[in-house]
Amino acid sequence: MDAITQIACNARQAANILQTISTAQKSKALNLIHSKLASAKPDILLANKTDKDLALEQVQAGKLSSSLYKRLDLEGPGKFETMLQGILDIDQLEDPAGKVQAATKLDNGLELYRVSCPVGVLLVIFEARPEVVVNIAALAIKSGNAAILKGGKESFHTCSAISKAIREALEDAVLGDEEADSEAETKEGSKKAIQLQDAVQIVESRQDIDGLLKQDKYIDLVIPRGSNALVKYIQWNTRIPVLGHADGLCSTYVAASAKLDLAKKVVVDAKTTYPAACNSTETLLVHSSHLDTDFFQQLAQILVENNVTLKCDARSLENLNASALFKEHSDKIQASNDEDYDTEFLELTLAVKVVDSVEAAMEHINEHGSKHTDAILTESEKEAKQFMAGVDAAGVYWNASTRFADGFRYGFGAEVGVSTNKTHARGPVGLEGLVIYKYQLHGNGHASADYGAGEGKRPYLHEKIAVQEKETLGELSRKRQRLD
Amino acid sequence: MDAITQIACNARQAANILQTISTAQKSKALNLIHSKLASAKPDILLANKTDKDLALEQVQAGKLSSSLYKRLDLEGPGKFETMLQGILDIDQLEDPAGKVQAATKLDNGLELYRVSCPVGVLLVIFEARPEVVVNIAALAIKSGNAAILKGGKESFHTCSAISKAIREALEDAVLGDEEADSEAETKEGSKKAIQLQDAVQIVESRQDIDGLLKQDKYIDLVIPRGSNALVKYIQWNTRIPVLGHADGLCSTYVAASAKLDLAKKVVVDAKTTYPAACNSTETLLVHSSHLDTDFFQQLAQILVENNVTLKCDARSLENLNASALFKEHSDKIQASNDEDYDTEFLELTLAVKVVDSVEAAMEHINEHGSKHTDAILTESEKEAKQFMAGVDAAGVYWNASTRFADGFRYGFGAEVGVSTNKTHARGPVGLEGLVIYKYQLHGNGHASADYGAGEGKRPYLHEKIAVQEKETLGELSRKRQRLD
Repeated sequence: MDAITQIACNARQAANILQTISTAQKSKALNLIHSKLASAKPDILLANKTDKDLALEQVQAGKLSSSLYKRLDLEGPGKFETMLQGILDIDQLEDPAGKVQAATKLDNGLELYRVSCPVGVLLVIFEARPEVVVNIAALAIKSGNAAILKGGKESFHTCSAISKAIREALEDAVLGDEEADSEAETKEGSKKAIQLQDAVQIVESRQDIDGLLKQDKYIDLVIPRGSNALVKYIQWNTRIPVLGHADGLCSTYVAASAKLDLAKKVVVDAKTTYPAACNSTETLLVHSSHLDTDFFQQLAQILVENNVTLKCDARSLENLNASALFKEHSDKIQASNDEDYDTEFLELTLAVKVVDSVEAAMEHINEHGSKHTDAILTESEKEAKQFMAGVDAAGVYWNASTRFADGFRYGFGAEVGVSTNKTHARGPVGLEGLVIYKYQLHGNGHASADYGAGEGKRPYLHEKIAVQEKETLGELSRKRQRLD
Repeated sequence: MDAITQIACNARQAANILQTISTAQKSKALNLIHSKLASAKPDILLANKTDKDLALEQVQAGKLSSSLYKRLDLEGPGKFETMLQGILDIDQLEDPAGKVQAATKLDNGLELYRVSCPVGVLLVIFEARPEVVVNIAALAIKSGNAAILKGGKESFHTCSAISKAIREALEDAVLGDEEADSEAETKEGSKKAIQLQDAVQIVESRQDIDGLLKQDKYIDLVIPRGSNALVKYIQWNTRIPVLGHADGLCSTYVAASAKLDLAKKVVVDAKTTYPAACNSTETLLVHSSHLDTDFFQQLAQILVENNVTLKCDARSLENLNASALFKEHSDKIQASNDEDYDTEFLELTLAVKVVDSVEAAMEHINEHGSKHTDAILTESEKEAKQFMAGVDAAGVYWNASTRFADGFRYGFGAEVGVSTNKTHARGPVGLEGLVIYKYQLHGNGHASADYGAGEGKRPYLHEKIAVQEKETLGELSRKRQRLD
């Protein structure tokens, strides 16, 4: 077995253990990681200094951007502590695994339970920031998944020092955890401790990634967090499911009945609060009726005053050309070309297009959008419903800024990523995106041949068993025993 | 745009319409399909005769199996009517789309709803049986998805005749459905009717499939229903998510505390009731303590008497060699080789292996199984729980036959396929596997910049809104208005 396959195989073994451990054991592991990292702080900052010194040389040689250099730093005020606090915050979240999602009585004594469980092995690829290792390790362990991590090469020493501390913590998490009933159980415990260390592994090179992308036997989900180019490369080079998004091409449609003040507030927020974010609006669609009043000109004015450059189609350009605005800000009002409607600008540039109906707006979005988040601003509930049903995107918003598309803003407590996939998990993804389910069937010697139509055969009962949200199988059993 | 891209693009347009139509409209479409197919019965049977005549020549020339020829036939007693009844049965199932899965009040007037919606465009590839077209068309429409279908080439004339009737029904389903308020709405309605015809399309050749597998821009999910070779080919040749399973390598582990009568009943059922099914047991793992009594020999005896050939590892073979059973049935008791534990026999052959612990059984299954369905037979609840947590499979069973792994047996009312994936949908998949969700955010001019920490900023409320299971957004709104 080559080195890369061994990494993937070890991760799978760790995942097989992780799927069996309790919420309390996960909590113990997270708290141990927290304390090991706290005590390893001097070593980690020393490693961070090595990375920073190497990076500084690169910056001085013009080979690395100073913003990337900044993102490497773990020494800045409060940075290390914030990273550590993140572990405790994740520990406090609801365990997404082990929850009964549905239960059915197939027959007397034959009961089917759909129970959430970890996906298995995650491969997470991200760019420079070393604190991501800690964040992902905590998310993975909380959800019961093993993780293989590849950070930016600039942060390698820091990531390795962090990973060493996590490894030690994981070993301690299992050892001496349960009272062993026998020598065999003690032996089994030591074996588990050794295997569990591989629950979080770091790999270094791009070549490692290429090798790991082929390990679909062992790896269940790839999560790229980084540039469009990184995500696209991964999507095109693996058979393993990829959770993420390459583009965030969000649109906001200002319908005929939209209120001007509302539109000004929402569109400025959607475009200007963080232009480099994937949930920023890149295309503004405006109903043609707004060209007949000063609505569009006023909306354009506040955008331009907020330093936004408008790339306008012929109708909107003509409308603005005739206005006082154009005289003052001609540099910010430009003609668009076709590609502008397929471009994620990630800066204060906005493509503008005039449309004659909500259907035309929807058609534009379904053709040019990236299925991330699209908004309609309208006073018509009917039209809003039509838009939210007909636009094929992870987020469909009514009278709100596309910038709300975020796991923390949604209240998930953590964000694994934002997915523009059409299966598994869509939109901002919290811990729930790292679990799937198994069917447990509990019988008492039941055989399929006893069921069906015909003499001596029994029908299935298929009676629904009432389940509370987030109930575990243990809780459900105890509740049902009390009811009996 | 080439012909294949056009098919995929038309399917996407149809899907965009399908995601907006109501349960009542879907029901109307399904009932129209039912009646159109009923009245087209003579044409369809004529086309079926053409396919059968062509296939018969192939059978006579030894180029086609007679079982495949049989599966082509739609004329047999009750076959056509059963196919039609299937549409009405699917119509009666709960609409999986449009259900609120979760709702959160982010702030006053800013509410987030997670609502189920169709995946989009399905590509379904299956072998000979022409009634599958009708089944899939009905499942797709009920869940709001468009479908592109490729059947076996032997059933092409039948499938085309069926597809023609479905197309006519879909056109009628939209035309004149709603009272148009204006000429524009009438025009929009006609356009929709034309686009909706492409909700179910048939393609003919293998080349078409290769072209369609590249259409990840338009196609969201591939569902292969057929041989291991077909499924593997598709998994290896597309970036589109594939829902299905290549192998069904199920194991049953007879633990130390298992009862003999229970084991006999369950193992015989799991192996012999339909050996070619993916949920049949292929490997029997037996705890070594059963070699010390006549337990294993008795279990082997009933299997052999049911015509099962046992491929035994050294320990189990030695045990049986010493028994009277071997003298009578030496042809059915053979030594196994390594590959037998990775083989889906699909016939009355069973690989047998002796293990010394539940851990060893789990390790074997996690290494050799196909993550489909695996069972433990034990009287120990602790051991059963350990097995069901630690075995990484879609189905983990306790004292029940692996043959229960089936959508109808689970009570789903329909089965799209059985998935051994680790994401999206796992195990037998019903209509739920054909939906995903969108986040709807309803605001009133809310901007993200107003939230956060600091002066003048507001915190998010993140208050959970109570949702009943299977509630639509309309139902939830009405309920909340009543409560106000």
